[in-house]
Amino acid sequence: MSDVARSREQRKADTLARLAAPVLDAWVATDGPYLVPLTLAWFEERLIAATDGASPTAKSLISTGRARIGIGPTRDVIMIDAVLERRLPVGEAHEVGEAYAAQNDWDPRTAGPDYVFLVLRPTRIQAWREANEIPGRTLMRDSTWLP
Amino acid sequence: MSDVARSREQRKADTLARLAAPVLDAWVATDGPYLVPLTLAWFEERLIAATDGASPTAKSLISTGRARIGIGPTRDVIMIDAVLERRLPVGEAHEVGEAYAAQNDWDPRTAGPDYVFLVLRPTRIQAWREANEIPGRTLMRDSTWLP
Repeated sequence: MSDVARSREQRKADTLARLAAPVLDAWVATDGPYLVPLTLAWFEERLIAATDGASPTAKSLISTGRARIGIGPTRDVIMIDAVLERRLPVGEAHEVGEAYAAQNDWDPRTAGPDYVFLVLRPTRIQAWREANEIPGRTLMRDSTWLP
Repeated sequence: MSDVARSREQRKADTLARLAAPVLDAWVATDGPYLVPLTLAWFEERLIAATDGASPTAKSLISTGRARIGIGPTRDVIMIDAVLERRLPVGEAHEVGEAYAAQNDWDPRTAGPDYVFLVLRPTRIQAWREANEIPGRTLMRDSTWLP
């Protein structure tokens, strides 16, 4: 365990760097409980998922509007609560589709007409490594970055 | 992407080896949706979690009896659906407590009387790496290993 907890400013910088890095692999939980590994993109402070619109995760997310997203490893965690802002059929996702393909190693626009982009707006973001970072883990609350 | 999908026998061997290895870090989803990183143990074909009995995850799990567990990295996934078989206050968890402490780097029996072990019985286990392993991903169904 590291002895020194990062400052909030440092955690925010680390978190934004990880969200913007190539191939953002995440675990996405929705009511069910469903849990799936998905590759996301980070665009205009939104998380972008791409999935078959008929998948259990897409249906649960469209029905409840909420997801919880874990980005690991589990001892260097980013945890995000998010709400579904909009869904876009891949054929209509111009900027969002470009952003997703630029960050990742596949382009959902080639996956067929059943695929949709789900645009998730974070409402809370937490980041911690070990137990000593738990007290200051909240970086965003009510969709607002803490100062 | 690897060209060769593993046989079911090989995936089962790989999966059992990972479940029994030191420090089994996992993502545990319960209704809410809640999602938390937890360190588990694997004992007598059960997953053992240790958490504060008043945590949202413990309360959701005790209420619904169900969890979905993801073990990463997200391109070498083990996905487990499980039901809560029993909960044990840490002070009463003899064999289970020994097994947990032996596999992991902390001993929940030192965490105070509010901590409980949650014994989860897998009902379905899936394992896959890339898209070519999706078709054969189910290793256990209805609590029975497939032949």
